[in-house]
Amino acid sequence: MIRKLLQSSLVGLLSLNIGALGAAEVKPEDAVEYRQSVYTLIKWNFAPIGAMVKGQVPYDAAAVARHAAFLETLSKMPLEGFTPGSDVGDTKAKPEIWKNRQEFEKLMGDFQEQVNKLNQVAGSGSQTAVKEQFGATAKSCKNCHDKFRKE
Amino acid sequence: MIRKLLQSSLVGLLSLNIGALGAAEVKPEDAVEYRQSVYTLIKWNFAPIGAMVKGQVPYDAAAVARHAAFLETLSKMPLEGFTPGSDVGDTKAKPEIWKNRQEFEKLMGDFQEQVNKLNQVAGSGSQTAVKEQFGATAKSCKNCHDKFRKE
Repeated sequence: MIRKLLQSSLVGLLSLNIGALGAAEVKPEDAVEYRQSVYTLIKWNFAPIGAMVKGQVPYDAAAVARHAAFLETLSKMPLEGFTPGSDVGDTKAKPEIWKNRQEFEKLMGDFQEQVNKLNQVAGSGSQTAVKEQFGATAKSCKNCHDKFRKE
Repeated sequence: MIRKLLQSSLVGLLSLNIGALGAAEVKPEDAVEYRQSVYTLIKWNFAPIGAMVKGQVPYDAAAVARHAAFLETLSKMPLEGFTPGSDVGDTKAKPEIWKNRQEFEKLMGDFQEQVNKLNQVAGSGSQTAVKEQFGATAKSCKNCHDKFRKE
């Protein structure tokens, strides 16, 4: 019981912090639009790296580096969009995100770590390393989607 | 005539470059969704700074710095979304963007410069400087919207 209370307070504190960072008073529909926009931008930058490492378009190291740098910043953005009470409307976010916040934040952290590594290898110039790390990053996306995103 | 040809070639080269960075083959509707998402994120990060400098919510220097850093990266993103032929569908982008690309890119550059300054003063900790630079940045938004965005 004590543990539950402590956990609940911690979640409350985290939410307050995220709320303060995100905006004064965020409407649920604005939070949904925000986080969907973040994922649109993540896809926009991630897909061309995929097309290049798969050989569908010519490899362009400068473009990979640019997209990877954008991705590193973008990976820090989704979390604040999952505000309390925003599991409503036109969203693929499962209610489990709010019920199992700790696991959700862990998987988001994994994703951030993989993107960080992708950005590092993008600067190294090794196409093989980028290809491998692209796969690891895609897997971190899938791990979270499988658990927390509706099909 | 020669000058016109040169200008047109330059625009062509710039467009090619942006295309290569953005994605292999971008559908106009995806470009529209992309750039609208960028602006959603810009608003998400810009509005809370506004609320703070206007005294609507308590000033939080760490939150201002975080939003300003995100804005600096985000300000580099819209341009590649205005791909050739994407003045279609559900967009507020005026056709003038594609007819007068040089002026559009100049105003986008002004915006990037003002956001860069905002990020610098956000780190300085001076609330007065942030307030002033918030105003200058908002003006750079308006300058472009007045000319290139439908009401």
